[in-house]
Amino acid sequence: VIGPDDVREAARVLDGVAHRTPVLSSAALDGMVGAHVVLKAECFQRAGAFKFRGAYNKVSSLDLAQRGRGVVAYSSGNHGQGVGLAARLLGAPATIVMPSDAPASKVEATRGYGAQVVVYDRFTEDREAIGAALAEERGLALVKPYDDPLIMAGQGTAALELLDDAGGFDVFVAPVGGGGLMAGCATVVRDRCPDARIVGVEPEAGDDYKRSLEAGRRITIEVPRTIADGQQLTTPGELTFEVNRRLVDEIVTVSDGQIVDAMGLLFERLKVVAEPSGACALAALLAGKIDVPAGARVGVILSGGNVSAARFAELLRG
Amino acid sequence: VIGPDDVREAARVLDGVAHRTPVLSSAALDGMVGAHVVLKAECFQRAGAFKFRGAYNKVSSLDLAQRGRGVVAYSSGNHGQGVGLAARLLGAPATIVMPSDAPASKVEATRGYGAQVVVYDRFTEDREAIGAALAEERGLALVKPYDDPLIMAGQGTAALELLDDAGGFDVFVAPVGGGGLMAGCATVVRDRCPDARIVGVEPEAGDDYKRSLEAGRRITIEVPRTIADGQQLTTPGELTFEVNRRLVDEIVTVSDGQIVDAMGLLFERLKVVAEPSGACALAALLAGKIDVPAGARVGVILSGGNVSAARFAELLRG
Repeated sequence: VIGPDDVREAARVLDGVAHRTPVLSSAALDGMVGAHVVLKAECFQRAGAFKFRGAYNKVSSLDLAQRGRGVVAYSSGNHGQGVGLAARLLGAPATIVMPSDAPASKVEATRGYGAQVVVYDRFTEDREAIGAALAEERGLALVKPYDDPLIMAGQGTAALELLDDAGGFDVFVAPVGGGGLMAGCATVVRDRCPDARIVGVEPEAGDDYKRSLEAGRRITIEVPRTIADGQQLTTPGELTFEVNRRLVDEIVTVSDGQIVDAMGLLFERLKVVAEPSGACALAALLAGKIDVPAGARVGVILSGGNVSAARFAELLRG
Repeated sequence: VIGPDDVREAARVLDGVAHRTPVLSSAALDGMVGAHVVLKAECFQRAGAFKFRGAYNKVSSLDLAQRGRGVVAYSSGNHGQGVGLAARLLGAPATIVMPSDAPASKVEATRGYGAQVVVYDRFTEDREAIGAALAEERGLALVKPYDDPLIMAGQGTAALELLDDAGGFDVFVAPVGGGGLMAGCATVVRDRCPDARIVGVEPEAGDDYKRSLEAGRRITIEVPRTIADGQQLTTPGELTFEVNRRLVDEIVTVSDGQIVDAMGLLFERLKVVAEPSGACALAALLAGKIDVPAGARVGVILSGGNVSAARFAELLRG
């Protein structure tokens, strides 16, 4: 579906456009884990999450006529903001389909990138159908959240930068939602570090990818109840599943409480804000869910930081 | 008292030891202020605040015999941690005098740097007398929190790096507690940018420096009640006052509520954790307390990030 060259090509497209986010480490964290941990801080990415990478890679691939007509995406969160910003930078009008109960802050942030927001009722309407209808009526290009080779390749540039800046890993850990971030990252990690253990992390309630990898086919679950709103998916992407089934060694799960603990540690020790899905991969490491040989080099993706201070405070007090 | 060469010399001492902390900026922040704002993020400094710079500069100046005997400092917070870490790196035993009601997290963090913590009752005992007695009995060198040329010069390296990395400023803003950070920073800012407006920021309740500069002599106030625990001082330092009275154009004050607003903005927009005193300078800018010409280049020090997640949550809900 994609190969390392696709990710390297995406890196060229994103050069000078996406932030080359910092690599963070902490002696205290290393002591807790008993290994050397490097964190790729995508919370500092434009629009606050890795999603901008894939969105820009995709929208920039459209021809000028299509960009002129515009793009559409459905998302209640980071993908919508990433597409909004990418489209604005590339001169394409963006329409983002969001549920009517999305937090006002997210709707506002998406509008802030110049996107037109179309709301739907998530209990009675189908966002994919709305997106498809808008795409057809208005000639818009649909920018999928993960199940697209250009999206996956764009997200993979996060791991490519981490490899370039911090060297290879013995263990690589990233959150898994639709699987696009992991598909892109695993593609370059496996290429550079053939023996690395590649581990995906899901919230306990949303273990569709874990179950699917174990079953060898895509399993569908109920919409999961979890604070990790970037991972409230019911089934893996078709294309991402094809990639991840070959490259990912294991998926582990974490509880919401473990995610909050990781958010607290990032706040207090690293002075960095991560949203629940953003802290999910580190949470698995801290909770001992991942087998890490002593002294191993561990690469971890902090995928995003879009959480309001009020919501953070609410999560902390549990 | 100190000149730009002292700060440059401190920078050589700190090279490769202190973190060269990142310079942050945000289009959203620039839009709010109507100027180009660069933030020097000392929350990412070792031990979580700028204090490590001065402490290391001072402790490294001691001869080996003195380092062998050790150092003593009195501090309930960042200075103690900075001295603890600097002393450990330089092989000097550290004794830190802390009030018995200091937060357990701060006592623990200070011990975590290998320092011996001596507690005192802040209502019945005098920490300066205890520090002086320990210094005499045990032959320890006292590391003052601000009123020492080597401390001031060390703190000034924060502004020196900001000038080197982000260019000159029209306006420079830093928090003022004892005045050591401002004395060091103002020394290099005035040297590089003779026409820059240099503005210090205090919490409303703790305006001893503001009153003192206006009176032309050091004024003593009651211990201020403010969330900005890095600035709960009653009078300016003697030496810092000599420097700051010549270099600082103005001191402005902010309310605790304005500080919390700035902490929230840093969290949500920059994804960065600042403690109350750390957000104080930015708070003044956001609250319109500083006259900033449109399009001006504004340098701001975020002085530290040592606030627990629980305390942050408590401050946010007010």
